[in-house]
Amino acid sequence: MEHRPIITLTTDFGYKDPFVGIMKGVILKINPFADIVDITHGISSQNVLEAAFAIEMSFASFPSKTIHVVVVDPGVGSIRRPILAVADHHYFVGPDNGIFSRIYNLTETLNVIHITSEHYFMPQRSFTFHGRDIFAPVAAWLSKGINVSHLGDPITDYVTIPLSVPITSKDNIIDGEVIYIDRFGNLITNIHTRKIDELSSDPDRRLKVMIKDKEAPLLNYYSQAKDKGLYSLINSFNYLELFVHRSNASLDFGIEVGKKVKVVLI
Amino acid sequence: MEHRPIITLTTDFGYKDPFVGIMKGVILKINPFADIVDITHGISSQNVLEAAFAIEMSFASFPSKTIHVVVVDPGVGSIRRPILAVADHHYFVGPDNGIFSRIYNLTETLNVIHITSEHYFMPQRSFTFHGRDIFAPVAAWLSKGINVSHLGDPITDYVTIPLSVPITSKDNIIDGEVIYIDRFGNLITNIHTRKIDELSSDPDRRLKVMIKDKEAPLLNYYSQAKDKGLYSLINSFNYLELFVHRSNASLDFGIEVGKKVKVVLI
Amino acid sequence: MEHRPIITLTTDFGYKDPFVGIMKGVILKINPFADIVDITHGISSQNVLEAAFAIEMSFASFPSKTIHVVVVDPGVGSIRRPILAVADHHYFVGPDNGIFSRIYNLTETLNVIHITSEHYFMPQRSFTFHGRDIFAPVAAWLSKGINVSHLGDPITDYVTIPLSVPITSKDNIIDGEVIYIDRFGNLITNIHTRKIDELSSDPDRRLKVMIKDKEAPLLNYYSQAKDKGLYSLINSFNYLELFVHRSNASLDFGIEVGKKVKVVLI
Repeated sequence: MEHRPIITLTTDFGYKDPFVGIMKGVILKINPFADIVDITHGISSQNVLEAAFAIEMSFASFPSKTIHVVVVDPGVGSIRRPILAVADHHYFVGPDNGIFSRIYNLTETLNVIHITSEHYFMPQRSFTFHGRDIFAPVAAWLSKGINVSHLGDPITDYVTIPLSVPITSKDNIIDGEVIYIDRFGNLITNIHTRKIDELSSDPDRRLKVMIKDKEAPLLNYYSQAKDKGLYSLINSFNYLELFVHRSNASLDFGIEVGKKVKVVLI
Repeated sequence: MEHRPIITLTTDFGYKDPFVGIMKGVILKINPFADIVDITHGISSQNVLEAAFAIEMSFASFPSKTIHVVVVDPGVGSIRRPILAVADHHYFVGPDNGIFSRIYNLTETLNVIHITSEHYFMPQRSFTFHGRDIFAPVAAWLSKGINVSHLGDPITDYVTIPLSVPITSKDNIIDGEVIYIDRFGNLITNIHTRKIDELSSDPDRRLKVMIKDKEAPLLNYYSQAKDKGLYSLINSFNYLELFVHRSNASLDFGIEVGKKVKVVLI
Repeated sequence: MEHRPIITLTTDFGYKDPFVGIMKGVILKINPFADIVDITHGISSQNVLEAAFAIEMSFASFPSKTIHVVVVDPGVGSIRRPILAVADHHYFVGPDNGIFSRIYNLTETLNVIHITSEHYFMPQRSFTFHGRDIFAPVAAWLSKGINVSHLGDPITDYVTIPLSVPITSKDNIIDGEVIYIDRFGNLITNIHTRKIDELSSDPDRRLKVMIKDKEAPLLNYYSQAKDKGLYSLINSFNYLELFVHRSNASLDFGIEVGKKVKVVLI
């Protein structure tokens, strides 16, 4: 028995308006057997980078052949292209504005298609809601098994956003920054364990995590912190994260996205 | 192969409490094959007009025979009636407080039933949560295929809310107002393209959109605006909408629902 | 025809981040036939008591054999145990931090198991996201029909949180308190009708509800209140609740969780 095809949705449409519900209606009208799963609709308004990070964190948890629709789209209605990226047996549908930049970096196989077959769009298309008029119907048709090649031709000049990358210097220092703050106020940095392991993979290594010239001692899990100071750990996505146990690190210490963080091997 | 029957939910229950989850449990206990889709639960607390607008924008995107449960219900427990409206092959279940006023206006076929068959309600009914005790179970039974006539008798004295309607004067002016503000701060007016086309359907017509005695120039899509001024466009629901590109028009210009907007053909 | 197994999710993960979507991916990768239902993800950050109340209010609305995953888990990564509680034909999966205390109190049958079979966890486990690495996969395997006894051994020393209990004195007074405030600002107390009926089950009894030395007159439903005063009623979960009609009682009267409420039989 075949299971229902899975379509995930990630947008900045929020939870106040009916926009996400409308996209689901469009999908179900084309393929009523689709299983639609929300990843999040709480991406900060028009923040393409945040959506890029959310889909990086999420997609691999889903079965292969899942169709991921990601819509943060300030250029909607302009000439920016709708695209489909096929990467590591997952499908990604969205605007060509760099929203899949982290996917391009990460996956081993990649095929990007400029979606041009208007046959699979809604017959009436607006200038302002391509989530409804283009991305949802294309995802629904994909979930019915149409061949990827029917959607358009491959491209190689898709848009990528330059991502902030941590820099290693003097063989013992990594300079990175906060790239995402979650609902708990935890500060996720761009420093991946891969980068730290390049300094030293010795499990007995002594690492010092510094932010605003203060140390945020490295622990294993949140409740090891015994006071309301700023601590750090390797999070469940293998990135360095700073936190305050049972409090909000971002608010308590006034730290925003972009703040510099340093790891020193001593 | 038949697809699962679709039930949509639109409420002001928000995302903090378990109320929506409880309604889903009630539905699945009666019909575990129902496919439940959230339209939104972020309707402003007890704002019947906002819900009326949300369901108008959404329902037609769903397949026919979809059952739409809409619950914004300040009169719960009083003598206000539970109703079912059957309109254009969609089913609408909710309180008779005018919440379907825009549906009544819009659809070509309409049959409204006062739901009285307590047989399809929960056996114990509270005075405060008819979403759980009446509307969810009625929707679930409907999704199992019970005949509409079993729920109660047709009525014609259902409640309608007077909707703000734009007024055309001097053959070249439409006076309307802001009726909805979305999560991006975009200002949606009650001026539909139908109304504008009554002034002139000439595609070369020159229209001036005025709010607070200032012009909000009419564009095609958001990113055409090259500064942080107030602009306007025809949105994806064919209503005139005012916006600030990549910002929040409501906050930037202090504009709330009810603000007058004028369209002048010049 | 068997329906899809139902898995509910209740967390404090909020709606900003992709954490809930990731848990759904993990579940669907193991059992693509699972029907996943959100109860709420708006539990206040790390508020175990609030989650305990939310699942008490919700679980019985779902069909028997439903699997309820509840994750509010400040001790994640420490030695606190993952548990499965089987109670009244429902399954509850979560951390052993007292989150199921109200379920233990309420249900007639109860069997609590310390989940130790790492075979059913994700192969790589983080210290910070057991929702993804332990609770979601265990729920998914349960939904595939594995025997409960395969997950681990029964325990009796599971953690329970002392719940605030209303006290009856002088045969005519109940001293309780506000334990939950919903999105409307309604103030839900810990005084159940069972407790009130112990004073007197006479339907003509006269009860006086007092808060901050003022009376909140007892009504049947919200719209019976004809002014913006503080009133009370028995809510749909059979608890005494204080409210302001079409307004926010918590904000209007500055009342928080923990505020004392008194019921006097006069």
